[in-house]
This record gives sequence, C-alpha cells and structure tokens, in this order.
Amino acid sequence: MIVSALLTSVGINLVVCVVYFTLYSILRKQPSYNHVYIPRLVAEGKAKNSGDFHLDRLLPSTGWVKRAWQLSEDDLLSSTGLDAVVFIRILTFSIKVFTVAAVIGIFILLPINYFGTQIHALDFADIPNKSLDLFSIANVNDGSKRLWVHFCVVYFITAFVCYLLFIEYKYISLKRIVFFYASKPQPHQFTVLVHGAPVSRHGKFSESIRNFFMEYHPSTYLSHTVVNTPSRIKSLIEVPAAFVSFKTRYGAAVVSDMRQSDNPTEWVTEQAPEPRDVYWPFFSPSFMQRWISKLVVIVLSIVLTVLFLIPVVFVQGLTNLNQLKKLFPFMKGILNITFINQVITGYLPSLILTLFLKIVPPIMMLFSSMQGFSSYSRIERSACTKVLIFTVWNIFFANVLSGSAIMQLEDLLEPKNIPMKLAVAVPAQASFFIAYVVTNGWTSLASEIFRVSPLLWTSLKNCVGSHDFDPPSLPFHSEVPRILFFGLLGLTYVFLAPLILPFLLAYFCLGYIVYRNQLLDVFEPRYETGGKLWPTVHNSTIFSLLLLQTIAIGIFGLKKLPVASTLILPLLIITLLFNEYCRKRFLPIFESHSAESVIKKDRENENDPTMPEFLEKLPTAYRDPALKPNQESAGNHYHSTPLLSSV
Amino acid sequence: MIVSALLTSVGINLVVCVVYFTLYSILRKQPSYNHVYIPRLVAEGKAKNSGDFHLDRLLPSTGWVKRAWQLSEDDLLSSTGLDAVVFIRILTFSIKVFTVAAVIGIFILLPINYFGTQIHALDFADIPNKSLDLFSIANVNDGSKRLWVHFCVVYFITAFVCYLLFIEYKYISLKRIVFFYASKPQPHQFTVLVHGAPVSRHGKFSESIRNFFMEYHPSTYLSHTVVNTPSRIKSLIEVPAAFVSFKTRYGAAVVSDMRQSDNPTEWVTEQAPEPRDVYWPFFSPSFMQRWISKLVVIVLSIVLTVLFLIPVVFVQGLTNLNQLKKLFPFMKGILNITFINQVITGYLPSLILTLFLKIVPPIMMLFSSMQGFSSYSRIERSACTKVLIFTVWNIFFANVLSGSAIMQLEDLLEPKNIPMKLAVAVPAQASFFIAYVVTNGWTSLASEIFRVSPLLWTSLKNCVGSHDFDPPSLPFHSEVPRILFFGLLGLTYVFLAPLILPFLLAYFCLGYIVYRNQLLDVFEPRYETGGKLWPTVHNSTIFSLLLLQTIAIGIFGLKKLPVASTLILPLLIITLLFNEYCRKRFLPIFESHSAESVIKKDRENENDPTMPEFLEKLPTAYRDPALKPNQESAGNHYHSTPLLSSV
Repeated sequence: MIVSALLTSVGINLVVCVVYFTLYSILRKQPSYNHVYIPRLVAEGKAKNSGDFHLDRLLPSTGWVKRAWQLSEDDLLSSTGLDAVVFIRILTFSIKVFTVAAVIGIFILLPINYFGTQIHALDFADIPNKSLDLFSIANVNDGSKRLWVHFCVVYFITAFVCYLLFIEYKYISLKRIVFFYASKPQPHQFTVLVHGAPVSRHGKFSESIRNFFMEYHPSTYLSHTVVNTPSRIKSLIEVPAAFVSFKTRYGAAVVSDMRQSDNPTEWVTEQAPEPRDVYWPFFSPSFMQRWISKLVVIVLSIVLTVLFLIPVVFVQGLTNLNQLKKLFPFMKGILNITFINQVITGYLPSLILTLFLKIVPPIMMLFSSMQGFSSYSRIERSACTKVLIFTVWNIFFANVLSGSAIMQLEDLLEPKNIPMKLAVAVPAQASFFIAYVVTNGWTSLASEIFRVSPLLWTSLKNCVGSHDFDPPSLPFHSEVPRILFFGLLGLTYVFLAPLILPFLLAYFCLGYIVYRNQLLDVFEPRYETGGKLWPTVHNSTIFSLLLLQTIAIGIFGLKKLPVASTLILPLLIITLLFNEYCRKRFLPIFESHSAESVIKKDRENENDPTMPEFLEKLPTAYRDPALKPNQESAGNHYHSTPLLSSV
Repeated sequence: MIVSALLTSVGINLVVCVVYFTLYSILRKQPSYNHVYIPRLVAEGKAKNSGDFHLDRLLPSTGWVKRAWQLSEDDLLSSTGLDAVVFIRILTFSIKVFTVAAVIGIFILLPINYFGTQIHALDFADIPNKSLDLFSIANVNDGSKRLWVHFCVVYFITAFVCYLLFIEYKYISLKRIVFFYASKPQPHQFTVLVHGAPVSRHGKFSESIRNFFMEYHPSTYLSHTVVNTPSRIKSLIEVPAAFVSFKTRYGAAVVSDMRQSDNPTEWVTEQAPEPRDVYWPFFSPSFMQRWISKLVVIVLSIVLTVLFLIPVVFVQGLTNLNQLKKLFPFMKGILNITFINQVITGYLPSLILTLFLKIVPPIMMLFSSMQGFSSYSRIERSACTKVLIFTVWNIFFANVLSGSAIMQLEDLLEPKNIPMKLAVAVPAQASFFIAYVVTNGWTSLASEIFRVSPLLWTSLKNCVGSHDFDPPSLPFHSEVPRILFFGLLGLTYVFLAPLILPFLLAYFCLGYIVYRNQLLDVFEPRYETGGKLWPTVHNSTIFSLLLLQTIAIGIFGLKKLPVASTLILPLLIITLLFNEYCRKRFLPIFESHSAESVIKKDRENENDPTMPEFLEKLPTAYRDPALKPNQESAGNHYHSTPLLSSV
C-alpha cells in the first residue's frame, strides 16, 4: 500500500467521523431521540422531556465531551459499577502506555529509521508515492549500531508495561476488595449453585438436597430452590440443579470452596451468580454433557476460524493492485483512475474486514452459551476470550501471513523459524494495519456514539408504532477484544513501524470520551462481577509483550545483529516469570473471596436490624422468570431472549 | 546389535541373577545377616535369633517366594500401608497389560513380521547372525494389507490399557477413601501448616498467629506450634511458619481449602504432613524464595540432562562395532575375538548406562529438597517425576536419536516431522532396549533382593565394631520411574518389535515377588500418603499411549499406508479426552478429603472417650527433632540426615 492510498483511507474515515460526531451532538438534544441516545436515563426516568424549542438545539456542541471528561472514577463507580470502571481503566492503561510509546517512537525511532539507507530512496519530495517502509525498521541498515536503540526500546517498553500492569492489577484487586466490603447483603453472597446431586431412591430431588445439607451443614443451611426447566429445549434430559442458600456468607463460601462429596462429579458446588445474571435457558447440563458441549464448541470455533480465512485472503488480494489487474483485466480502465484505485487498495480492505468481523461476537456468544455456563457474565467473559483469540489469529496472523507471498503455513509449523518469518512479514503490513485502526477503530467509535443501528431500528419502530424498549448493556465481549487487539498492534509495531502509534493513541483517547459518555447515557449494567474481566486484559497484554519479543528476536537476526537477538531471550523469560508472579499474587482475589473478608462482612451484619427480613426473602431470590407471571418478568426480560438478538 | 551379542548379554545377566538369588536364599537364613535381609523384622523385634544350626540353612530354598506370592492385599495393607499397596498395584497392572500384549505380540505380530520380505534374508538356519530387525515391523512389506493387523493392535492395546487405567484409578480412589474412614485420629488430620503470616507490629509472631485464628476461627482453633530453625543453613532468613491445630478435622479442612487472607501471599495454608513426614531442614521459605529455588532447580535439572548426554553418546558408540574399530585401531585385535566383541556391543552399553543412572535419583532428591517442600513425601514424589522425565528423555529419546545417524536435533524441532523420525529410529533400537531391560531390570531386581551395597556396608561396619542401625524405606523415587519406564518401552514396542515383551513380562513378575518380599522383610514405611503416587503412574501411562500412537502415525506413513496413519489421529484425541475425564473424576480425591468424609469422621469420634487425651497431646505433635533431647529424636532420626545418605 502506498502513502496516498493510506491517506485516502484516513481521509474518508475522518470525514465519516466528523459527520457522525456532529450529527450526534445535534440529535442527542432532540427529545424524540431520547430512546436512542439516552435510553438509560429514560429507563431511570431522569430524561428531561421538555418540548421547548431553542435555536442551540440545532447547533453542534461539545458539552457532552466536557461532562464525560470531568466525571470522577468514584462517580462512575457509583453510577455504573466496578465492571464499567475496570473497562475504562483498560483505556487509561492503554493511553499511558501509548503516550510514552508514541513519544519514543516518533521522536527517537522514526528519525533513525528514516535516515537509514537500506531502502535506497531518499528523495524527500517524492514521499506520497513511496512506500511507508521508509519509516519502518526495514530501512535501517543491516548490522547498524543504531539497531541497539531499537533493542533498548524493546527492553524499556517491556519494563514500563510490566510496571503499569503490576500497578493496575494491584489497584483493581484493592478496588475489588473494597467494593466487596462496601456492598450491601446480596442474595448471591449467601447462595451456592449445586450441580449433580444424586436423587435418593426413596425421596424426591428436593428432599435429597435438604437431607444432604441438613446432614452436613445444619448450622448454616437456610433453604434451597430447585431449578426446573419444564418447557425448554433441554427438558428431555432431566439433570437437576439447585440454588442452596445459607445463613451467612461464610457458610456459603465454605460450601463452594470445598469438595462436598467423595465422588467429585456429585454435589459439585460453585458460587451462585447474581439473580439477574443467571442464564436460565440451557440450564444445568450434567458433567458429561458440559464436557461434550465444550468439545463441540471448540470444533465449531475452529471451523469458523478456517472459514474466515476466505474474506481475509480476498482482502489481502485487494491491497495488491497488480494482482487485481491481472485477475480482472476488464476492470483495468477503472483501476487506473487514481482515486478509485486508492479507495480500493486503501479503504476497501479494512472496511470489508470490519463488516465481516461484526458477525463474529454474536456467534462466539452463541457458542459460549452452549457450554453450560450458569451466568450471563461467565458466557460473556468466555465469548470475550474467544473473540480475542479469533481476532488475533485471523486479523493479525492470517493477514500478516497471507500478505507475504514467501509465507506458507507449513513453514510456520517449524517453531524455530517463527521469529524470522514474523520479522519479515509483520513490518510489511504496517500500512494495512494503520488503515485498519482508522476504519475499525475511529469509525467504530463514531458509529458507536451515533448509534447507527439503534437509530435506524427506532425510526422503523416509530413507523410501525411499537414502543417496546430496553436500555442495552455494554457489549464487553465485542468491545474489550477490539481494544486489546489494538493494544497488541501497538506493542508489536512500537519498534517496527512507529508511525501507527499516533493513530492508536487518537483511538484510545477518543474511546475514553465516547465510552464514558455511553456508560452514563446509554448502557445499563446487566450484572456486576466486581472487575473479573481484568485477568483477561492482563494475560492479553503479556501475550502482546511476548509477541513483541519474539518478533524482535527475528528482526535482530534478520538485521545481522545476532547478539541483540540472543539478549532478548532473558527478557522473554523474565516476562513469563512476572506473569507467573502476578498469577500467584493477584489472580486468587478474582476467583473467590477470602475467609477474612466474608467473616468480617458477616460480623458487620450481625446486629443489622434489616438482616432477618433479608434472610426471609432469600429463598425466593432465585426463580426462573419463565415460571413467573408475565408482569413479574419485565425487569428480567433479557434472561429468556435468544442471545443473538441481544448483541 | 546382532542376535549373538544380545544372547551374550542375556546370558551374563541370567547367570548374575541366578547367583544372586541362590546366595540370597542361603544368606537370609543366617542370623548374622538379619540386619541386612530382615532389618524391618529386627527393628520390630520379630526376628528369630536362634543360633541352632541345621543343614538346610546352607541350602537354597524357595519358601520366601511362596510367602511373598500368597500374601493377600489386606495383609499387605495392614503391615505396610496404602502406599506400598499402590506400589505393588503398579506391578500387577503392568503384568495384566503385558500378559495380553505379549500373547498378541508373540502369536500374532511376530509371525507376520517374520514372514514379510522387506529385509531380504529368509535363511532360517542363519538366525543368530542376522539382525533382530527380521522380527520387527521393519520387515513387513511397504503397503502390505497385513499392516492393518498392526493398526488393530494399536487400537486394541489403547482401549485395553485405558479400561485397566480406569478400573485401577477407581479402585485406588475407593481404597483411599476407605483407608481414611478406617483411620484412627491422627495429628495431621487436625492440623494445617501456615506460611507467610505477617508479624504484627506490637506483638511477636506467635501472638500474631493466635490473634488471627482466635479472630476468624474461634470455635475450632485449638493451638499452634511455631517452627523455629535456629541452627540451620537457612537461619539467616527468619520467614516463620506454624503448625496450627484445630479441634475437628473439618475445622482444619476448611482452613486449608479456603484462601484465608485478602492478600493471597499471606496466611497461605496447606494440609499438614504427618509429624514423622515433616522435612525440617530448609524449612519454610518465603513466597519469593520458594519460587526462585524452583527456577534454580529447573535450570540445574536441564544442566544435568545435557551433561548426561555424554555417557549416552558414548554408549551408543559402543554398540556400533565398526565405528569402534575406526576410533581405536590398536584394539582391533581384541575386538575381533567373538566373545569380547559380543560383550562390548551387547552387555557393556547397558551396564554403563545402568551405573550412570544410579546417581540420578539421589541428585534429583537433592534438587527436590531445595524446592521448599514441607514434607519428605512431597520431595520424594517430586523427585520421582523428575527421575521419570529424565529417564524417558535420556534413555529413550537420547538413545533412539543418537543411535540413528540420520537424526539431528534440529530436525526434531520440526513437530510435524517427529512421528516420521521416531518411526525410523525407534524400531532400530529394539535389541539395545532388550539388553537394557535384562541388565537394568532383571539384574537390578536380583541385586535389590541380594542387597549388595547394604551387605558390603554391614560387613565393613562389623569389622569396625559399629552397630548403628536403621531399617530403610522403599525408595519410591528410583523404583517407580524404572517400572514406569519399562511400561513405556513395552507399550511403544508392542507393535514395533514384540520380541521385547517376554523379557519385560519376566521383569514385572520377578519384581512382583521381590518387592512384596522386601516390603515385608526390609522396608519400613517412612510416611503414609494414602496412595498419592497413583496420578503420576496414570499420567505416565497416558504419555506412553500417546507416544505409541505418535510412532504409529509415523510408521504407517513410512510403510505407505497413509489411511491408517490418519485413522490413528481420532484415537489420539480420544486418549487425551479420556485422560481429561479421569482428571475430573478421580484426581480431586487425591488432593484433599471431601467435606462429607471429614464430617463423618468427626461425628464418629464425638463420643470417643480417648479424644480429649488425643486433643491434649496434639499441640506437642509437631516439634523439630533437632530441638528435642537426643533420646527423643531416635525414632525420627532420618529427618535431619542429609538426603543423599538416605537414598
């Protein structure tokens, strides 16, 4: 891709963004669009519905930017919960990393790259038609001493990112603990979900549950609710589960942490999700079913990944103009028009990929829902990981590999060649990924705030007179992988082709404003996991660092600086050790609460006069909304909607 | 290696075995050798020390074989504990597997191999000088339909072994549970080991422990013993630990299963080992120390593995006579004498390897002791895994690879080539491994029962007049890897070169008799883990099956039967799934006791009149023998002896 094609792409997207943001700042002030732009406030009854007309309602304004910017973290926490705060911290973390990376990249590495002579083309006047490779490490001369600067940057960036990761993990762990200490008594803190209870011969299932817990936990057992799935798809397999409630949090924690039965596949316990978070359809598969469905999901995911190679290869074909002319000789005339060929090679490939990528999160969500998870939050977290792996593989690796003719899949199967192959292929794709950041990043944010599809959908519904209305929740499983993938792009390209960094930084800053705004106005939290998302972010960033180091090993080998190549190895090992340390130090905090904290909370509530009432209501907290009369299920509407429509 | 060289090796070892067994059956009847041959009975005061002389005391006899054979499993359990029973079950499991495998191998596969014509040498009369390859799959013609028999054998053996593995895992799990239910109250059931307790500012460490458990577990906390290590190597780092005892098993189980503190690196709890099993030296490293020492141990193990390649390559040089003649031309005369060259190529290689291998278990034991484990049993289990990995890598892979000139290490780094390379190299080493089984297996058993080194050692001590005496314990970490490695050899060679199977079967049967005899007369159990060894055996067998299948994929590819090659893949996946299922179904039973079982045991003891006395003594159960007066430490002598001398 040449510079002019890239500039065309940036230009098109910039125009789209400006138009969307301008329209948004006008439309959000029109009360008739309240359902689109401030659905959360509408649902909470906070929307001002004044019909008074003022002239400034028709002018674009930036008041919403100021509000989103000034919002403090405590305010965000109280109005949207810890999960949203953690989500925003992914963005602030990225901004911190890429501000430093961009300064180093643009002011130190870019000049070094540009004044190399490996690619013999130092004609300043001719830049727009030259390849962007001039600004990449490819232009530094083989064996040059200047490569040690790149080497130092790899070390510095790794150290800086690990430092920030540690600080963040510590901060969020602490927030999580404080959040728990500050929480009111909630049903899920006192409840355990029990699978695989054997049915006694002489009694019913419910009796069997009562007998077991009365036998072994008589002092803490309170009550239980058997989960019935009478009219479901899975009703033919009758594997029962139950929510068992206890008098104290400690009682519930002990039961969920300890293996209950001598047979590990019976009386399997886990912490109960929040009542609103329970995923009632497809509930409670048996040990073997859960296992087989997991296997099926893995196979389906692989099939999807393989099928997705088709658009990827097609897109990479588009970026290569000469190949295109050969394949479609009749289009030669059109392709020779400069603007059209710049659109086709610069803008179209990222656009097509972005459109294809839209269908992946809902599919992964469907796959995860088949795995037998008991809560919507677990399904979404699992889908988030799937989408992330899919994106990294299909957008990063498949593009990089199919883009370079020298690569063949079987070469990649030789592990020792991987660093070298990546070192050749990755820098060559810099311009494609800049275009991708602009199209998939910037414009996605703009259409997120402009809410294109809800806008169209509402207009349609207004036509047919329907007024059904639910404020949406933040789709973590599609947004988090996107942000993490851009983080991966930034970290791998920081020393290869630093020109991508300003574009990424712009994305993260824009995202920071947009998502804070949407969290206030649009998204209503569907569940609260207390920031259980963070370990995924941490692991993904560690993977990005390892990828950066692997490519560095290859690059320094390729650039005839084998000493530098070897000296990266200790860094790789240190990074793995750092990750292992964090796993030990912080991860358990995200898995369960400590005895110390649950006992403290129980003590706190001992003399609370509202506790008897809370415990009295506890047995009815978990009830399938499908079994309730219609008017009761309104608040829990999403539980029984198919997953695809909710995405 | 030619048949005559192999026969020489078998002959030499057979003679050694017969001599050892004969001498043993005479010497064990001499009262002056009681300390060597029945030390356990001596220590228990059950040895008959009658000085009467009978003629039959000088004649070899087989009474001990009959006794060892007839011993029932229940008797073994009551006299030697569950660990010994599980050890013997490894042998019975192997006997079952290899009886079936040998029948199939000798009566079905061997004729098929022999009547192939790939190696053109069908001269019956000339067998002794022909290569053993005639009996291996190498002799079956490429693309022959008869290879489908081999294919079926791979499937059948996998199914049969998996079936037996399942039965065994289930049986031993049940034994373990029953063993726990039948146990008397023991200090370690009521005790938890606490690491990383923060020292309070105003108090001492002991106070800090008391305060914590009085605060959070007031109803079950009984007492604690702080571990002091005043005069140790590690004394400069003063990281304190404590044994905390509880009034009930359930109280202890809850504390050891739950994370206690908000900071996961503080108040780290684990089930306490038995008092006799505690490894007092090097006690209680901090979180970071344990971690760094683990890293150091990994590096050291790798160094040892690399250094060990020297004897392996040397040994493989010996098996190649022509190469030897070239390297040492002055020895040509000697090497031309048939018997000497048969000894050098047939017997010497295995003997040298066996001698070098003798030093590995003590070194691995030392490494494991540096990792900060709190009990001797954990150290031994960890050393067992290390020795096993070392043996499989250095004896199997290094021999196979260095033995075939076509192999180079860098080729092996290409994963897709591994099956093919192994398929070429593994069958070629069949005769070497037969010699190895005979030398390392048969003769080791014979010298185990004859107890060569204790015999020499006792003779020496008698000369200087010393009478210090400790019955040894069964060295699981050197014996289990040996048995498992022979299992691996058998499973991989079952369809490649079935001639090895009778030799292996003879080893397992002999081992069954010898070890049962030694468990009764010689070894005194040093600890009781309730069969925690079995998961290692299970995993090792699964690995052997996967190796068998990988080689099968290569072999069928090599033999131009690609369909069979592809059809092995599902088997590989099914085996992995089977292993995963067993992990879920049985492994938790070996990690901790269930709430059900500990509560039942507690109830059982509620009205036991001896319990108050037991609980009164509990606080003094854990005390460093180094701090006790000398006469008290006699029974715990081994705790403070260096590990190397105990092996």
